[in-house]
Amino acid sequence: MKVKINGTGLYLPPKIEKAEDIANLIGKSPDWIHQKSGVFERRISEIDVDKMGAIAGKKAIGDGQPPDLIINASGVPKQTIPDTSTFFQKEMGYEGIPSFSIHCTCLSFIVAFHTASSLISSNSYKRILIISSDRGSIGRNFNEPESASLFGDGAAAILLEPSSVQENNELLYHSMNTFPSGSSYTEVRGGGTMRHPQNPKTKLEDNLFSMDGPAVYKIARKQIYKILLKTLRANSITKEDIDWVIPHQASGKAVEAYVSAGGFKKRQVLETISKFGNCVAASVPMTLAIALEEKKIKRDDLVLLIGTGAGLSAGCTLLRY
Amino acid sequence: MKVKINGTGLYLPPKIEKAEDIANLIGKSPDWIHQKSGVFERRISEIDVDKMGAIAGKKAIGDGQPPDLIINASGVPKQTIPDTSTFFQKEMGYEGIPSFSIHCTCLSFIVAFHTASSLISSNSYKRILIISSDRGSIGRNFNEPESASLFGDGAAAILLEPSSVQENNELLYHSMNTFPSGSSYTEVRGGGTMRHPQNPKTKLEDNLFSMDGPAVYKIARKQIYKILLKTLRANSITKEDIDWVIPHQASGKAVEAYVSAGGFKKRQVLETISKFGNCVAASVPMTLAIALEEKKIKRDDLVLLIGTGAGLSAGCTLLRY
Repeated sequence: MKVKINGTGLYLPPKIEKAEDIANLIGKSPDWIHQKSGVFERRISEIDVDKMGAIAGKKAIGDGQPPDLIINASGVPKQTIPDTSTFFQKEMGYEGIPSFSIHCTCLSFIVAFHTASSLISSNSYKRILIISSDRGSIGRNFNEPESASLFGDGAAAILLEPSSVQENNELLYHSMNTFPSGSSYTEVRGGGTMRHPQNPKTKLEDNLFSMDGPAVYKIARKQIYKILLKTLRANSITKEDIDWVIPHQASGKAVEAYVSAGGFKKRQVLETISKFGNCVAASVPMTLAIALEEKKIKRDDLVLLIGTGAGLSAGCTLLRY
Repeated sequence: MKVKINGTGLYLPPKIEKAEDIANLIGKSPDWIHQKSGVFERRISEIDVDKMGAIAGKKAIGDGQPPDLIINASGVPKQTIPDTSTFFQKEMGYEGIPSFSIHCTCLSFIVAFHTASSLISSNSYKRILIISSDRGSIGRNFNEPESASLFGDGAAAILLEPSSVQENNELLYHSMNTFPSGSSYTEVRGGGTMRHPQNPKTKLEDNLFSMDGPAVYKIARKQIYKILLKTLRANSITKEDIDWVIPHQASGKAVEAYVSAGGFKKRQVLETISKFGNCVAASVPMTLAIALEEKKIKRDDLVLLIGTGAGLSAGCTLLRY
């Protein structure tokens, strides 16, 4: 699908929280946090997801015309109704632009990118702004040290447009699988019809993030490897042909596995979890935007966005940037 | 976009709640409810949204092959993480099928239908199951009689596939606009980062449905009329050319306005709100599925799906069924 990323924007909250700052809260040492989660520090946002996302969205648009579609691709909403996309639009000062949300937790951006490419490819829209904004720090369960030490806050946005016939930029491939057998491995059980606040069975923990890290890692590693081989085969390429791998920053161990188990060179795999933590759906576009700011990724580079999300889903998108 | 609805499924919970049954709860007479909301009775589900949607999904699939994508297009999720699509898949007994959610409250189905058509059109998927399942009865605020008297529970699903060159079936047109100036008119403020259960500012009412009916009706009527005229013009058709109008069943008054203000004949406008209430995102596909069961809609009929949703959004899709 002939699409091109013509703008990216990033919002990194200024407040830094180090492993040392939460060590006492979760009853573990900073070293334990570094080793278990790979997170040395993270950002904590003092503004809500809509304002965070709008800052990133404005940077992606720059001085350009308004988008003709806004897609919210975050892991957790601002509120149940309406969906977060309208609040992004409000904070950006627009009115009348169609907007909706795509949700599959940490894979929301990867799926929204593919869906937006399809909407451009079918001539439905020409200028799509995708915003991922997550504030995972809000739902941390400090009684669950491993997951509580993972999350950080951040937002990123991209502007997607059609590429011209002369341009190489395109979405080359997308693949995804969802395995409901792993649906209980990563959860926030509250916030919907099952554990409604009016339901006497609802406990405080139901509204906090809960994860069985080892169970996720076991399925994730296997499924990611399968989807990676499928992608290489379908595109007749080798691992060496991929310039940059942008994994969802699930944990230090998960990112490292693309080298130790996936067979990529360390220089190919982009890592932001040590400085920013797991930013849920925002991790992938944040890592992309940071690599662009650092002038790592260049036009026409082959980029693989890949990761897993609650569901449990594994997915990837291969693009010529 | 060359697509065809090759299956529909419906789940109507067996338990009926009449206006008489809630009159005392909201301090109003059954007559007041009939007149204000247009809802004479509704269904109340004793199973959760995932089981409801899976029953509808199984009917839409029938004896056929599994879908290659499952889209949840509901107004309110089962839980915050993971998204409801994986729970539909789990209840249907599948494993490995890509699945995600599209959310824009009451317009979720109309947007998901357009998005799925685009995904088929770009050869990304060939057999997409869209499920809308809502249990609005859970979040009713009995201190707000007008909105509390509106909601009902229900689920519906459609199976979307490519149509062949010889077939007339297609999505002819889609249009949508979102107006953040109306974002506070229809809300469930809880369930996300803004009014998290751990936030001391969060009140019970934040987790209940809240609506400024007259404010919504005023914008909705104007925007729906604009989008209707635009659709007729873009497709060079008149109101008489449309065989069936399937409006979101927002309220009795909102459905009636398609005749009194919109200029359609009463026989063209499908109404289910009197018997089933406002079923949030499920209203449109439920009304479609019911009209098919009643053998009203026939192959190659021109059908307009249209409505408004929290956001505030107005949208429509014109299809050759």
